[in-house]
This record gives sequence, C-alpha cells and structure tokens, in this order.
Amino acid sequence: MKAMVTTGARQMVVREVECPRPASGQVQVKLEYCGICGSDVHYYKDGKVGDHVLDHDIVLGHEVAGMVSEVGEGVTDLKVGDRVALEPGIACGKCIFCKSGHYNLCREMKFFADPPTPGALQEYVVHPADLCFKLPENVSSMEGALVEPLSVGLHAAGTGDVKLGQNVLILGTGCIGLVTLLACKARGAAKIVVVDLYDKRLEFAKKLGATHVINAKKEDVKKRVDEIFNGEGADVVLETAGSVITIAQTPFLTKAGGTIVIVGQSAQSEVSYNFSEVIVKELTIKSIFRYRNSYPVAIAAISSGAIDVKQIVTHEFSFEDSKMGFDTVIEDAENVVKAVIKF
Amino acid sequence: MKAMVTTGARQMVVREVECPRPASGQVQVKLEYCGICGSDVHYYKDGKVGDHVLDHDIVLGHEVAGMVSEVGEGVTDLKVGDRVALEPGIACGKCIFCKSGHYNLCREMKFFADPPTPGALQEYVVHPADLCFKLPENVSSMEGALVEPLSVGLHAAGTGDVKLGQNVLILGTGCIGLVTLLACKARGAAKIVVVDLYDKRLEFAKKLGATHVINAKKEDVKKRVDEIFNGEGADVVLETAGSVITIAQTPFLTKAGGTIVIVGQSAQSEVSYNFSEVIVKELTIKSIFRYRNSYPVAIAAISSGAIDVKQIVTHEFSFEDSKMGFDTVIEDAENVVKAVIKF
Amino acid sequence: MKAMVTTGARQMVVREVECPRPASGQVQVKLEYCGICGSDVHYYKDGKVGDHVLDHDIVLGHEVAGMVSEVGEGVTDLKVGDRVALEPGIACGKCIFCKSGHYNLCREMKFFADPPTPGALQEYVVHPADLCFKLPENVSSMEGALVEPLSVGLHAAGTGDVKLGQNVLILGTGCIGLVTLLACKARGAAKIVVVDLYDKRLEFAKKLGATHVINAKKEDVKKRVDEIFNGEGADVVLETAGSVITIAQTPFLTKAGGTIVIVGQSAQSEVSYNFSEVIVKELTIKSIFRYRNSYPVAIAAISSGAIDVKQIVTHEFSFEDSKMGFDTVIEDAENVVKAVIKF
Amino acid sequence: MKAMVTTGARQMVVREVECPRPASGQVQVKLEYCGICGSDVHYYKDGKVGDHVLDHDIVLGHEVAGMVSEVGEGVTDLKVGDRVALEPGIACGKCIFCKSGHYNLCREMKFFADPPTPGALQEYVVHPADLCFKLPENVSSMEGALVEPLSVGLHAAGTGDVKLGQNVLILGTGCIGLVTLLACKARGAAKIVVVDLYDKRLEFAKKLGATHVINAKKEDVKKRVDEIFNGEGADVVLETAGSVITIAQTPFLTKAGGTIVIVGQSAQSEVSYNFSEVIVKELTIKSIFRYRNSYPVAIAAISSGAIDVKQIVTHEFSFEDSKMGFDTVIEDAENVVKAVIKF
Repeated sequence: MKAMVTTGARQMVVREVECPRPASGQVQVKLEYCGICGSDVHYYKDGKVGDHVLDHDIVLGHEVAGMVSEVGEGVTDLKVGDRVALEPGIACGKCIFCKSGHYNLCREMKFFADPPTPGALQEYVVHPADLCFKLPENVSSMEGALVEPLSVGLHAAGTGDVKLGQNVLILGTGCIGLVTLLACKARGAAKIVVVDLYDKRLEFAKKLGATHVINAKKEDVKKRVDEIFNGEGADVVLETAGSVITIAQTPFLTKAGGTIVIVGQSAQSEVSYNFSEVIVKELTIKSIFRYRNSYPVAIAAISSGAIDVKQIVTHEFSFEDSKMGFDTVIEDAENVVKAVIKF
Repeated sequence: MKAMVTTGARQMVVREVECPRPASGQVQVKLEYCGICGSDVHYYKDGKVGDHVLDHDIVLGHEVAGMVSEVGEGVTDLKVGDRVALEPGIACGKCIFCKSGHYNLCREMKFFADPPTPGALQEYVVHPADLCFKLPENVSSMEGALVEPLSVGLHAAGTGDVKLGQNVLILGTGCIGLVTLLACKARGAAKIVVVDLYDKRLEFAKKLGATHVINAKKEDVKKRVDEIFNGEGADVVLETAGSVITIAQTPFLTKAGGTIVIVGQSAQSEVSYNFSEVIVKELTIKSIFRYRNSYPVAIAAISSGAIDVKQIVTHEFSFEDSKMGFDTVIEDAENVVKAVIKF
Repeated sequence: MKAMVTTGARQMVVREVECPRPASGQVQVKLEYCGICGSDVHYYKDGKVGDHVLDHDIVLGHEVAGMVSEVGEGVTDLKVGDRVALEPGIACGKCIFCKSGHYNLCREMKFFADPPTPGALQEYVVHPADLCFKLPENVSSMEGALVEPLSVGLHAAGTGDVKLGQNVLILGTGCIGLVTLLACKARGAAKIVVVDLYDKRLEFAKKLGATHVINAKKEDVKKRVDEIFNGEGADVVLETAGSVITIAQTPFLTKAGGTIVIVGQSAQSEVSYNFSEVIVKELTIKSIFRYRNSYPVAIAAISSGAIDVKQIVTHEFSFEDSKMGFDTVIEDAENVVKAVIKF
Repeated sequence: MKAMVTTGARQMVVREVECPRPASGQVQVKLEYCGICGSDVHYYKDGKVGDHVLDHDIVLGHEVAGMVSEVGEGVTDLKVGDRVALEPGIACGKCIFCKSGHYNLCREMKFFADPPTPGALQEYVVHPADLCFKLPENVSSMEGALVEPLSVGLHAAGTGDVKLGQNVLILGTGCIGLVTLLACKARGAAKIVVVDLYDKRLEFAKKLGATHVINAKKEDVKKRVDEIFNGEGADVVLETAGSVITIAQTPFLTKAGGTIVIVGQSAQSEVSYNFSEVIVKELTIKSIFRYRNSYPVAIAAISSGAIDVKQIVTHEFSFEDSKMGFDTVIEDAENVVKAVIKF
C-alpha cells in the first residue's frame, strides 16, 4: 500500500509499504479522508512542534475516517464495510487518569503523528476497534474525519459548561475557534461574540453562527464587549488564538463569577496575567488538552443536525496531492479554514 | 380597573377594583397577556389544587407580561413603556434557600394565584422591579407571558443536565412536556423520544422537534425505546405526565449511569418504584419544584432564536372572554396546548 | 496450594489445587487476610444471591490483601514483598462506561466470587497489577482487606457529596452502614444520626462517631429526626438497611433540596415511594453500585488516620476455620460487624 | 457608647457616640470579641487598602461576635441574650449574583470596615438579623469572632473541592493559610504540605495538622514536593501567600487534572504565569472573593469538633488597648497569627 511520508522540512513523498494486518481487538481501515491539522503542518514546515523534534521520516495525519476492510479476532461491534471515524489516541487503560475517565491525560498515550507514533496518511491503517466509531448513514466519511477537530471544540465548550441562553466570547477564528463556535451554538448560547484580526475570517464566523464579530485591529475589544454585554462581560470566554496578548485579555472580558477556557497554546509559555482581576471577579480558568469521550457526542450531533461541521472545509486535495495540500495551508493561511485529503 | 375574579367552581366575573400603586422598589405593569395554566384551571374547575382549597374569591393567572405603566421609588433599571415578563414568585431573600440560590424552595414564597396570594388576571398589577424582566424588541409580549411555562421546561432540562448529543426521552405531551422538549432541543439533544397516549399530541411534538414518538396505547414503550436506543435506554428521562404508571416506568427506560427528572406530580403520591433497577444501573433521580433564575435564560433563548416558544400557543381569548378560555381548556383538553388571554 | 471451596449450601472444604502463575501485566499475591462479606455469606447459606444461582463448586471471598509473591512480565510498579490490597473487579477498559470513569457499570466486569468468576479465599491468587494497590507501612494487611467494604462507604458518602458541617442520617448499622458512617465522619459531617433496630449495633455506631442514634423499634424516627434537626431533615440521607420500609422513609427525613443515597438493595424490588414529597422538596435520589477509583482514596485515608477502619472487625478466624467464620456470621448476626479470615 | 475610631495612619482613639437602635428586621448586638484582620491593619497602617483610600475617620473591625441586646420589629429567630456571630457583608438580595447564591459578588455589597461602610469595633452594633448566626452553647464568643476568617478558609477549600484522601499543598502560613489548612484537614485531606519562609510559622502549621512543611528559603520547593508526592504534584494547590513568586509556582506543583485556588491577592496585579504548564496538565484555576453561606458551616464544624479554630489565636487585647493590638500585629508580624480584642 501507499504511505505519504514526510522526510524533512517541507519534504513529502509517497512510499510503498507493507499493509498492516489487524491483531486481536483491532480492525484494519481503508482510509477515505484525512484532515490537515495545524500540528501536522508544524511538523511538515519546521520539522518540530514545540519540544517534539522530528528526527526521522514520519507519516503525518491524525484526523481520519474510512471503511473497515478487515476485522481482527474478538471484534464483534464492527464488520467489514462499516464506515468509521478513528479516535487517534491509544491510552494505557490502567493508570488513574484512564480509570477516572481522564484518559487524555494518560502518560502512556500513543497518538497518531505524535512522534514517535506514526500518523495515518496512508491507504490502510490498523487501530483498536474501540477507537473506531461507526458513522451513521447520514454522516459522510469527510464529516467523519472532521470529528477530530470538532472534538476539540466540543471539549472546549463542554469544559466551559456553555449553557443555553448564555453569552460567550471566542478569541480566534482558526479551525479550533470555529469548531468551538459550532459547539457553543449547538449548546444554545445566546450571544456569541468572535474576535480576530481578519475580516474574512470574521465573515466566516458570522456564517457559522457568530452573532457579533470584532476585528481587534480596528476596534477596542474591551469597549465593544462592554457595549454588547452592557458592561458585564461574557459568561464564558474561550481563548483559541493562543497568543500572549489574547490570553492576557481574558479576565477583563469575563463576567464576575464566569469561566475562561484556555484552548490555544501560546508559542511563548509565560503570559503576564492579571490575577487581581481574576480574584475580584472570582473567575474560574480552565484549560483543555485534546479531548476525551467526544467522538460519540460529535457523531450524534452531526447526525442529528445540531452541528453542520462540513461547513468548515474550504479546500480538498487528492492523496497524491497531499504535499500541495500542506503547502497551501502554509501559504494561504488566511483563506484555509480546513483542508482535507481525499483518498 | 377591571379584575377577573373566580368566585367558585367554574364561576368567573369581571369586577371593578382599585388600581394598585407601586411602592418603593416596585413597578406597576399594564398587563398585555396572561397564559392559562393547568393549576389555574384546577382551581377554577374544582375550587382546589391538591391540599390548597379555595375558600374565597380569587384572581387567578400567573403567566403574565405587560408594559411598565408606573415606576416606584428607587427603581432605576426599568422605565415607563418597557415591556416586561413577570416572574410570579416573591421569595423572602433571607433564608438559607434564598441565599444559596435555591429561592424556589423558600418557605415564605408568595406566588401569584397560589392562595392566599392573588393572581394577575387583571388590568394592572404591582410587582417588585427585580422580578420584572425587560423584553428585547424581538420578543413579543405574548412570548413574555410564555416565559413562565418555558421556565419549567428549562429547569427540567437543566436539572437533568441534558447535553449536546445526548439521547433523551420525555413522558407526556402536555404543555410542560412540550416546553421541556423545546429546552432539550435547544441544548442540542440528539435523539428526542416523546411518549403519550394521543396521536394528535405526538404529531404536535414532532412539529416541535421530537425525533421519535411512541403512542403508549398502541406500542410497547420499553420495546420501542430499546429499538431506538439499541437496548441502552436514554441518557436522560424526563417524566412530565405525572401518572403513577409513567413514573414507575422511568428506571426501565434509562441508561446505566443516567438521570431521571420527575417533573410531573401524580395525583396519587405513592408510586410502586423498582429500586433494584435503580441500584443496578446506578441511576440518579432528580425532581423539580417550579424553577429559579430561569427568566433571563428563557428570554435570551427566545430572543436568540434558540427556542421558538410561541409555537405552543393554540388558542387566544380576549380578557372579557377569560371564562370561555378556561372552559375551553377544560372541555377541549386534547386540542389545547396553551391558551392565552390578550388584554 | 490450598483453596477453600464452597460445594453447596453451608458446605465448605479445603482442596489442594494448582497454584496460578502471573501472566503479563499480572502479579501473584500470597493472601494474608480475607473479609467475609454479606454476599459471600448469601452464596454460602442459600447457594444464590438474587438471580445469581450457584450451580457448581466455587471459591468465595473478594475482600482480600496479601503480599506480592511473583511479578508478571511488564509489571514495573510492584515488586515481590510489596503488600497490596486487591480491587476485586476487572473491567473491560474499552466500553463507554470504562472510558468515562464509570467502570463499575461495565457489562463485562469480572468480579471475585461473582459467579462464574471465582473468588480469592485461597492461598495464592493472580490479579492484574493495576488492581493491586500497594499498602504503606502504617496500613496493615488486615486493613488492606477492609479497603473493599470501606470503598462502598466512601462511594456512598462521595455520591451523596457529604460536606464539612453538613447533617447526615444513616439508615442501617450493618457493616456498610458503619463504613458509610466512618466516611461521613472523615468528610467532616457535623451531626450524624444513625437508625437501626438493635441497641447493641447503635452503641457500636456511637463508638464509631455517630452523634445521635435512634432505635426505630422504640422511637418514632421522623419525630426524633425533626427534634434533632429542628424540623429540617438531614442534608444527606444514606439508606443502607435495604428494607422496603427504610427506603420508603427516606424522603420524609431529608431537608428540602437535599440528597438521598440508596446503598442497600431490598430483597423486594418494588417500594411504595412518595414522589409528592420528593417533588415539593426538590430532592435528589442517587444510588450506588459497588464503587470506582476508591482504593487509593481509602488507603490514603487509613494511612493519614482520617479513618480507623480496623475498628469494625469484631471476629477473626484462621483460614482452616473459614467454615466456622461463615457459620458464625450467619448465626450470630447481631454481634458480628465484620469477620475476617487470616491466612 | 464607646467606639474605637481610626483617625489617620496609626492613629486610633476612643469616642463616645450614640448607641444605634435596631430597625425592622435588625438586631442590636453588644459586642464581645473582634478579631484584627490584615485588611483592618492595612487601613490603620497606611490609610488605604489597594485603591480604597481612607479619607475620613472610620471605625474598623469586621470579625465580630457578641450578644443580642435588642431585637427589631419582625425578628423571630433571635431573642435578647442569644450569642451570635455577625456575617459582615450586607448584599442587595435582588441582583443576579444574589439570586443565584453568589451574593459575595453583589455590586451593592456593604461590608463592615470596607469604606465608606463603617466597621464594628465599638460596644454595640445593629445588623440584619439574618446575618447574625446564633452560636450553640459549646461555641464561645471568641470562636464566634473567628468564624469570619475561618469562612475564608472554608470557601477556599470548598472552591478547590478538597476531598477525603486527597493530597493538598498550601502556600503561605498567614492566618488565611492556616484556616485553609484547618478546613482541608477537616475535609479529610491526606497529605497536607505547607510552604512558607519562616520556621516558626511552619511549626505552627504542623501543630494545626500539616503533615509536611517546606521552608522555601532553605529548600527547593518543587524538588521537595516531587519527593513527597512521587513526582505527581498535589491534587489541590491553595495559594494564600499572595506573592508574585508563589502564584507563579502553582502550576508546577499541581497534579495533571488538578486544581489551583488563588486565595491571596498580590500587591502587584500582573503575574508571569506559565500557561503551557496549565494546558498540558489540563489544570483548573479557581479564585475566591471573600465567601458565601459559610457561617452556618463554620459554626457547625466548630461545634462538632471537626475544626478547633481557637488554636489560631496568639494574642488577646482589651477594647481599650485596641491600638496596642493593631501596633503589635504590625511590629511582631512573625509571631502574631491572630490577635483578638475582647470587649
């Protein structure tokens, strides 16, 4: 079978490799779609993400869906022909984090394309059956691949406990900002204010359900937020931009007693943060690391129509054109919300 | 001014009474709409609700909205001309229930039309300003009156913590069952199964967003629920029918680890309930008594379009025809979802 | 090695069987203590528990601790000589219950002495290393065996979210009632009222920290509870007696807004339950099925001195005298709180 | 009656003023004890606290208890002779914060000795009856005065949801650090590590229940914490020192998935905070502003023996010697944990 191998910074080639066979409890999946994620692009572009340096050839890709092509021993819930979305992280199942339902914090986690674990941008992959979630008829395989980024948005909105009728503010309109917006909308948020630096992205946010948008290059964010929320701040502020500036803004934009969710990771770790504002408002600051148990929820929400996730796809490439896809994401950042590769 | 006075079982007359003036902290409201609630109808029909016997003339009505016509001393948040929805219960503000945010459990509660407290089916009423919630331009006064029953639905769905992507089951399609359905839908529930005995009501539920309906007269409820949820039961079961039979069914229809919300009160207090089923599934059973802090949420949800509550109105009467309205609710129960009186 | 085999109702014999060897991820444990639990005794006495009929020879016992005697491949956290408490249930680790931290609801659970899974009343047992919790020096092996029943009490008090300064009421003074009492005390409960039918047991409860006891044969429970709590009811009521009568009492003994935890399972499944009382007080009823993630908590609480669990042991038997131990539990029910077998 | 009036920085004189009489809903209390709090001392020492500048004479003191000496109209729960602890803040009761149980965030709050509201260091004070909590016989009036600082500790531990068997770490051994320690202990925390710069204070912490202490001047805090918790960090970290350095340390000392509670306010608002550490561990950061609904809990916990709060009192002064009391707190900071004034 063919695998798309990243061999260095901005180098990607097709290689013929042996097709993996499912062990007990696993299934083999013939991939149909793979989304291109920011972390994949970072590896491809720089050969590293944060401390994770890429010192060898690697297959990238962790937002994948496909069709079950072979079933390992003991697998009863799936059969050949089932279309599935693949949750990319394999946790140990035995540590306190796994046993208490916080498996995303498992230290033994093996996650597609998180070196040294290989990714899934290849024709076939084997994966534990319990991490392959069957897609209903009315959820396409492309939507199946989008379950991965959507899961981050669901975990962000869920961690903030965004409730029906609440006012929320989202900083950032990258893919994660927008799926967070979809999640907030689907949970019944009333006013949804989105802040970014690019009008084009803000227009996109409006299309997806933002009730108000603020271009931070042109407007005073705090002043506009006070106008929109009558000086009260948002019930929940979700920070997805990951910049030192936007993280530092969060306590000033949040209502007393409210919640901040830090979703985006800043390139600089240290942020000058105003804890007096935090205390006097008795704020809660939460953070998310990936997601947990979000796949069934995401699939149900797409299937029921509560979330139309395919709206975020702006670009599609063939498997052969994967390199072009990655290059486009780098070079046309403002226009790409989500690019997907079709096998 | 005119007041609509219930003078006995199925007796209602217009009386000229003195128009009340707002004290400090109060506003006077010229009423525009009043919904007819089941509890109002019980008083009108039988002269009692449960233990509450009606031993004197009373003005009924507690689902009201109108326009501020005079403002008492010290009121700064409202002005003459503002349209407002009136939360009907005045709590003491000093007991542990009030101070901990559970004011609906306050023992000193004075609630419109809950004897001896008079109701609001009259041209003007005075009420504490902090219980009069301003309606935005895009929320009509009729919708303002519907905030009261909607609040029960919001409190039911909130108490069950119905989440995006979850499967819910609602027993009963009375007004409260249907507003509960609207609340579950707006919170992003995936499959929403509604059970009742009347096809007409079930059709109405479908129009409002039920994904599946079950006529308990024609189908085996447990069997159908197992088909719909693959034998797992619903994540949240909301009991609004208030019958001994439906309450007793709840643990059998709920998923292991799931939640039951008892909304409807049975005429018979004692229900034969299977606690073995409860324990082996580790279920949680919650209940609601009216609602708390729901008015701002309800108004925000109506204004944002998350909930279209006016769909539940099937009948409208003039103030003068109030008696006809009450009689219609009694005599045409199957067709009336919500009747409102327009002043 | 020797195993204590139950061969029929009230029949128990020692048999020489092959000593099991640890597979990968397992350890072999030389047992030191085994508690005798009510469910073990039911099997021994009647040959069944509820629907679970015992149709073949079985080794009972699931409250065990001992010393690691051999370590399987890949086990790094334990070494020969470590003393450990064994959590008796092996969950699948793959279903939604396991992944969300509710592994006690796993349908594939294999639990010591829950037929067809054998128990641990034998000299050596093999068990997954992640279910063998190392005991600190200051926690004895007997206390290690008591971690199992204590876990039920911890899960009960935790499910009720018993808080510092709250008033609680516990129905029943069996072993589970008493460990629930220890857990409530250690969480800082203020008034702890315990109800039972036997003065001797109530005295025991007082020794363990009950602030008030009520003998339901001699006093009107509701009246006494009203006196103690000034007519308010308890913040949390924990039902461990498992009788139709005590379950039915719970809503009348609970404060408005309070919580009931159903711990004990009635022999009769159906209880006549007053849901009007539940609704008007907006009560929450929770239930527990075994426990989850309680072992580390229990061991930490014993080690820190927050809980002195060894107080509950009233009888000790040698391994050879196991039958006498079981017989004593049956015949001297009033005096036995917890009997343990020492290897 | 006599009032102790602060007339400028480090100036305090006794003045004869008119004795206040209780209005409807109020009681008059003859004070017996008043604790000296850090915020009182700041006003006395500098004539300001943060932005609050003291531009006129003021009576300080907000940690008070005494005996009811006169009862206003409509007060039924208290009578002359009852000993009471006075919760110092009067909230509006009408805003969304008050109605939802978060009255400590009420913007209309009037709080003893928070200018322009006068304090209570005077012979008699009038106060709303619902903020005067009756002390049981076994709780002394001095303990009643200590309910105020203890409430902060209870709110801190409660906000962190410190649970039985958990490991906690407390930064700072000021009065608030120590009452937080008492609260954690009473909730059943297992290992309680306390960090400060002074051995004398750390010894005091040990007396109050700390299981481990770290002198940050002599030891590497992170290294010691890793030793104590096997490299895992604490389940809950409570920051009461209020320094830029200690706030910045918090994420490095917390277990993945754990909670940080920011109790102390830094003189400098801006803290350089590592959000990468926060995200990768998916930490929650909470903060507290005063407390809410803590008085009944504190009194119950003192009365039951769960908390022995009087241990924190190191100095006692007579009303006449109030100035000496304030001066001692300033000049002997290392030795004073809590100074109280006896009337």
